This record gives sequence, C-alpha cells and structure tokens, in this order.
Amino acid sequence: MSSKPLDYENLNENVKKCQYAVRGELYLRASQLQKEGKKIIFTNVGNPHALGQKPLTFPRQVIALCQAPFLLDDPNVGLLFPADAIARAKHYLSLNSGGLGAYSDSRGIPGVRKEIADFIERRDGYPSDPELIFLTDGASKGIMQILHTIIRGPNDGVLVPVPQYPLYSATISLYGGSLVPYYLEEAADWGLDINDLRQCIGQARQNGVTVRAMVIINPGNPTGQCLTEANVKQILQFCHQENLVLLGDEVYQQNIYQDEHPFISARKVLMDMGPPITKELQLVSFHTVSKGYWGECGQRGGYFEMTNIPPKSVEEIYKVASISLSPNVPAQIFLGLMANPPKPGDISYDQFVRESKGILESLRRRAHLMTDGFNSCRNVVCNFTEGAMYSFPQIQLPRGVIDAAKKLGKTPDVFYCIKLLEATGISTVPGSGFGQKEGVLFEMSQRSHIQLIKESKLNINQVWTNTVERGPR
Amino acid sequence: MSSKPLDYENLNENVKKCQYAVRGELYLRASQLQKEGKKIIFTNVGNPHALGQKPLTFPRQVIALCQAPFLLDDPNVGLLFPADAIARAKHYLSLNSGGLGAYSDSRGIPGVRKEIADFIERRDGYPSDPELIFLTDGASKGIMQILHTIIRGPNDGVLVPVPQYPLYSATISLYGGSLVPYYLEEAADWGLDINDLRQCIGQARQNGVTVRAMVIINPGNPTGQCLTEANVKQILQFCHQENLVLLGDEVYQQNIYQDEHPFISARKVLMDMGPPITKELQLVSFHTVSKGYWGECGQRGGYFEMTNIPPKSVEEIYKVASISLSPNVPAQIFLGLMANPPKPGDISYDQFVRESKGILESLRRRAHLMTDGFNSCRNVVCNFTEGAMYSFPQIQLPRGVIDAAKKLGKTPDVFYCIKLLEATGISTVPGSGFGQKEGVLFEMSQRSHIQLIKESKLNINQVWTNTVERGPR
Repeated sequence: MSSKPLDYENLNENVKKCQYAVRGELYLRASQLQKEGKKIIFTNVGNPHALGQKPLTFPRQVIALCQAPFLLDDPNVGLLFPADAIARAKHYLSLNSGGLGAYSDSRGIPGVRKEIADFIERRDGYPSDPELIFLTDGASKGIMQILHTIIRGPNDGVLVPVPQYPLYSATISLYGGSLVPYYLEEAADWGLDINDLRQCIGQARQNGVTVRAMVIINPGNPTGQCLTEANVKQILQFCHQENLVLLGDEVYQQNIYQDEHPFISARKVLMDMGPPITKELQLVSFHTVSKGYWGECGQRGGYFEMTNIPPKSVEEIYKVASISLSPNVPAQIFLGLMANPPKPGDISYDQFVRESKGILESLRRRAHLMTDGFNSCRNVVCNFTEGAMYSFPQIQLPRGVIDAAKKLGKTPDVFYCIKLLEATGISTVPGSGFGQKEGVLFEMSQRSHIQLIKESKLNINQVWTNTVERGPR
Repeated sequence: MSSKPLDYENLNENVKKCQYAVRGELYLRASQLQKEGKKIIFTNVGNPHALGQKPLTFPRQVIALCQAPFLLDDPNVGLLFPADAIARAKHYLSLNSGGLGAYSDSRGIPGVRKEIADFIERRDGYPSDPELIFLTDGASKGIMQILHTIIRGPNDGVLVPVPQYPLYSATISLYGGSLVPYYLEEAADWGLDINDLRQCIGQARQNGVTVRAMVIINPGNPTGQCLTEANVKQILQFCHQENLVLLGDEVYQQNIYQDEHPFISARKVLMDMGPPITKELQLVSFHTVSKGYWGECGQRGGYFEMTNIPPKSVEEIYKVASISLSPNVPAQIFLGLMANPPKPGDISYDQFVRESKGILESLRRRAHLMTDGFNSCRNVVCNFTEGAMYSFPQIQLPRGVIDAAKKLGKTPDVFYCIKLLEATGISTVPGSGFGQKEGVLFEMSQRSHIQLIKESKLNINQVWTNTVERGPR
C-alpha cells in the first residue's frame, strides 16, 4: 500500500516544522497526567478564569440577554437583570440584523467597530477610523492573518523579540517565512537595545533575508516589561528607517503593575512624533478581551487596527477575512463592552468598578509577591513583572541536573519543568520554548503569578499553592 | 519614498490571487447601497437569522445561563428558565474548568466531543472516537486547516465540484495549491459522473499536478442536490483507487426537502463497504451549527471528524490548532446541544420539536415554491432544491443584455445581478462566482429560497418578497 496523502511524511512541511511550546511537550504530558486523575494547575497560558478568576457581572448579563433575546419581553426580566444591562443588550441586538445567530460583516459589526474607534481616540487622543479596525476570533487569528499577508516566501523575515510568545515563531513557520530573532536583555530588565536590532537586521540581510516586519509585545509576554515612551519612539524610528511594518501586540495594555512605566500605545507615540513618520509608518496594533481584567479567553474576541495601510491592501485583508465569513458575534459584543464599559451614574457602574479594580489589584499584588518570592529563593533571580501576566525567572540548576537531562537527550529546562510537573502538578513552559538564547541553559520560565518555587530543588511553597487554590480574588 | 511592506504590490501573491465571490463585487456594492440607506436583502450567504429565522429557545436558554452562571444561584432563576435548561447549563459548565471565559483544549472540550461522537454513532450505526473530532470556529476554519495541511505547493491539486462554494477555490489559492475542478451536470440534476472525474484527474496529472484530495459538498452548495448512496460509494471507490483524501462537506445534512434522497454520510457508506477500503480511505467530514434548523451562523461553531488519519498526522493537526489556543467556547456548547438535543420527556422537548420542525417544514415549502416559481418563469429553468439552502436557476438573458454587459467589461451574469440588486435590493451571487463553466454565460445563481424572479427582465414577485419579510415561520 503506497503512502496516503494525510500520512505524516506527506504533510505540508511548514505544518510539520512549526513548534508551539505553550501547548507542547509539557502541556501534553500535563494533559496526560490530568487524564490519569492527577490535579494539574495549568500555568502554561494566561487563562485566568480556568484558575478561578470570576467573570465581570455586567458584560455577562448583557451577553446572556443577547443570547436569549426573548427574555427582553418577559415581565420578570427585571428580577434577574438590571435596567442598564437590558438597555445595552437592546443596543447590541440593534447593531446586527438577526442578532448573535447571524454572520456579521466579515470585519465585525460596524457599530462595535465604532465603539472601539472611540475607545482608541479616548486612550490616545487621536481619532481612529472604524473602517480600519477589524474584529477577529481572538487576537491570535488577526496576528496570523497579518503575518500571512506579509510573508511571501522563505526569504521574507520578521523580527521577533526573544524570549517571545511562540505564536510568532509558529505562525512564521506555518506560512513559510523566516524568523529573525532579536534578544531582550534580561540583565537590563528585558530592555531592547536599538544597536542590537541593527545588528540582527544586518545579519539577516547578509543571509539573504528580506526583513519586512517587526513585532513588539508591550507589555511583554513572557517577560513582563513595559516599554517606555522613549523606547517605543526609537523602535518606530528604526522601523521607518528600515522600511518595516510594525506589529504592536498590545493585548496586555490593561495589565500594568507599577506606576513608573504606564502603558503607551505604539499608535499614540507615532501620532505624537508628527510627519513624515506619522503619515508613513505602517503599523498594525492588536488587542483582545482575553486579557486585562476581563480574562474572557474562551470567548475568542480580538481586534486589529491598521495605521497607514493603503486602501487597496485593506481591501485584500478584508477579502481574506471574508473567506471564513465573520468572527464570532458574541465576542464582538464583549469587545464593544470592553471599549464602552459602564459609566459613572449607570446602575452597574459601581459594581463594575469594584470587580475590575479588585482583579487588577490582585494581579498587581501577585506580581510583587511572585517576583519577591522568586528572588528570595536560592539560585533564582527574576526581573519584576511590570505588566502582562507572567514571570520569567532564571533558575540556576545544579550540575547534576544538567547532566541527568543531557543523558535523556533533553534540554535542562525541559527536564526541570517535567520534574516540576510530576512532583507538584504545576504545568509551566521551559525558557527554551520561548527561544531563549542558546547557551543560556539555566533559564526557565514560570508563566504564572500563582506559584512560587522556594528552592531550585523542586520544593514548592505550600502557602503559595494554597493562595492559588483560594482563587485570585 | 520606496514602496512599503504592506503596499498592495508587496503583499503575498497568494493573498492577492484568491477570489471570494460570496462576499465579492456584488456584496460590496450591496453594502454600499445599504450604507446609502437602501433596504438590502442579503441572499448571498446562508444566513437565516439575518432573514428573520428565530433561534431555537432551549439552546439559547442554556447558553445564556452558561454566560451568566451567577443566575444559577438566583432564587428567581426558575421564573425565566426551565429546569432542564438549568440542568444542562450546569452540565456544560462542569465540562470546562472556568466556564465560557476559559480556553478549552485546542481540539474543543472533551465532554462535548464525546457528545458529538455519540451523535455520529447514532446517525451512522458505527462508533466514533472523540479523540478524532476537533471543534472549530465554524466549519470553514476546519476546512481551511485541513486544506493547509494537505497543500505543499503549487503542484498539489484538490478536486472541487463546480459550481462550488467558493470557500474551496479561495482557500486553495490562499495556500498556494491548484484547484482541479470537476463539473456537476445541470442537465442531470447536478449529478456527478465518475468518468468525468477520471478525465479531470488524468488531465490534471498531465499538467504536472499531484491530485491529493477531493471535496464533495452533500447536500450541494450552491446546487442543492443530495447524493445517493450509490453515488457516494462510487466516489469513495474512486478516491481509494486514486489515493485521494476525501473531504466531506456535510454541513447541510439536516436540510433535506424530499424523501427520495435522504442524507447519508460519507462515513457511513465507507463503514458499510467493509475492508480494505473501510480501514484505508482517509476521510475528513465537516459539520456545523450554522445550518440545519439551527442557523446559528454568528456563533461560529463547527467540527471535523477524521477517519483513517494516522495518529502522527492527527498530532500535527492538533499542534496547528493549538497555535490559536482554542475554538470559541460558547459555540462548542451549541455543538454539544446540536449533538444532544432535548429528549422525549424533557420539559423543553415539545417546544424544541415544534420549533425545529416548523423551521424545516418552512424551508421545505420554500424549496418547492422557489423551484416551481423559477420554472414558471419565461427563460428560466431550475433543478429542484433537494437539500441545503440555495437554488441555482439558469436564466437565459436577451442578446441585448449580454452585449451591454460586454461593453462594460462585465460577464453577463455579474451585470444582471448588479442590475437586479440596484432595481430590487436583492443581493445574489452570479453563477460565474461559483466557477460555472466557461461559455455557459447565461447562468446565474439565486442563493436563497426567499425571492422569486418572475421574469428574466428583473421583475420581482412582490408576494414572495413579502413572504420573506414576514419571516420564515
């Protein structure tokens, strides 16, 4: 029998090549252990509701009413839903003919895109055009679509920060392009050095790669740093000089745990700079309902906003979006609610503020506790988690562990994380999964605020684990 | 200023090449007219809720409770929700830790995949393995993923029926493969002739194309025919002989409007045939909540089931699915409800049956009315719509119309459809958008049961349009 089209050896090579560590070997092993009845704490992705974070009440009330519009005619509806949730549900139902069961425009519901444009304008102080905002099934799908639009072949390169969220490396592989890594400096609080960037791009070009785009993740995933305005400005100038599109992954913009480096969007800095760069630099910015104090990962809602992308290219992006008809409509409503939350004076305002502040304060507390905890451990150092949802400690392993790992043909960090998983049920992502520098074998990531490894010898501080199990607020 | 990475001329050529007529020139013109205040009836996609079809009550009650789980603790919940909806919501909430706000496994919630496997077993009489069922954000996304896995480069070909749903041609372009069309015979009720298939594949091979997969759409989109068991068997044998993966697009399996040709799944026929083919032929089958009597297009829920795909390939497909983390969770619940609807004795059973039967009967009535109506028109013929949601009439245009179209550089059917749109507000898809044969310029599609063109001179039967506006049930 000859081999068949969907036999492994006959699959698209790009599919086989791509790696996705966040749900890679460690995750598969963790899932296996879970199946066998072991209690697993999954810290390999930022999935706050899975770890006990409660959803915000008001948005869930609105979406429940949108899903069950017949309740709006029920005389008892006021017993279960406040008047402002009812009004808001009617508002969203009026925006998409046929409600949540109908495909929307492939770019998303125009009225929701308008709410997002208004949110961006309030945030940045510059008007935003709803026609240049496309809604997607989570930010990942938008990032994948834009990368697919950019990558023409194996010699097209994309600058990606390392340590990086592996969505980027996986997607670049999947679409057959070249990853051009630039390294964030752990010793400099995961800072980005423009001279290093120049070196990376020069070297890539020497290797025949046409570098066409640069990715920044701000706040950083998995490294947690917040870029300063000066740094963003440097990056924009660099992209302008080098003729790169900038992809600004800003999905953690609400997750800020200090006051020194507030979030500033790439788009605002670009607008502040003035012409010619303001009118020339091509920028695509991404945001989501999965992070922030929302954590609505399972709803799969995201958007991207395009700046200085010519109308003909926007049309092409629209055409490709239309092949899969429309992003899911319920998550579009969440995006509208995120952009346009309850206002002072609304019935649900106080509760909404109380809930969202509670979540953010808890995340901030845990950012401090995690970093302090790591740094109080022997052989562990960790930069302070300024934003996002992850800590990325450096753990110095004893020689014996490294040798044991090598004997099994595993990198030491993967070996360590598997041991950690088996001993404690905590599922993490090893630093090498984020592409951490070769030769820096002593690093591993700890993608979570939730647990603390007290010592490098796999002991877990039970107090911390208990804190987790009580839930984040 | 040199040209920039996201300028049109620098985009990925595959992105530029792909065409998607369902939301192409006609749709864009219709959207423009709508913006200008004209009332438009969009019949270019099967989007039943947008045309007034009401959602089924029970599933919407369940999903509303899943979105607002705090209602489950409210003493008044029983005033708005029946007990079986409450029980079912608790069931689904127990299946995904963190509820609808948490990412699920990238293949979908295991418990829901089990419900789907049970549904398939009841339907086909053969057990189904939940580990080989992957949930997706609508069937389109699954189809795209499988095609991406198959297509390795420009010489990999996929057999696609013509007239076809342009998802296939667009996706094959997007991933840089070759479309190998096979024609359905309008004169033979859109039948599929195996000898023609052999000729198509032979010719493609002569042109250096490695044909690796075949698509069937059953019931047909946009042609409405239901394949007979004998025909499906022939197709399976053909794929086996020619070493092709079969992609079975069966999203309209619940939309059957006659009793002579009931739906039979490719998987059931394959299992009935016995070894060796039962154990060898690679098959991927697709289904959705967007069609049937559900019509929940906006929720974006679909699944695919893999048969005879080796575990190593399944792992690769899992890996790629994991890059975008998980399909949206609310639509996964809808898939569970579709697979496991209320049973006799349940509180909501009678209402569910009444609603779903009402929708199906209305669709069946309209299938007859549409076809009869078309065939009563001068210069129009139309095969009976046995299933799915579309009628595909052949309209003979006067010479003058054809000449007028040519003068404007448009194909006659596009010209006709634009005139139809401008005169009546009805947005259709021209037959050429489905790849209808070159030289058969007098055909156009009418993707809808909703309106009737009384004559070929753009008159609309107002009775029909009014029927629409009253809603489908």
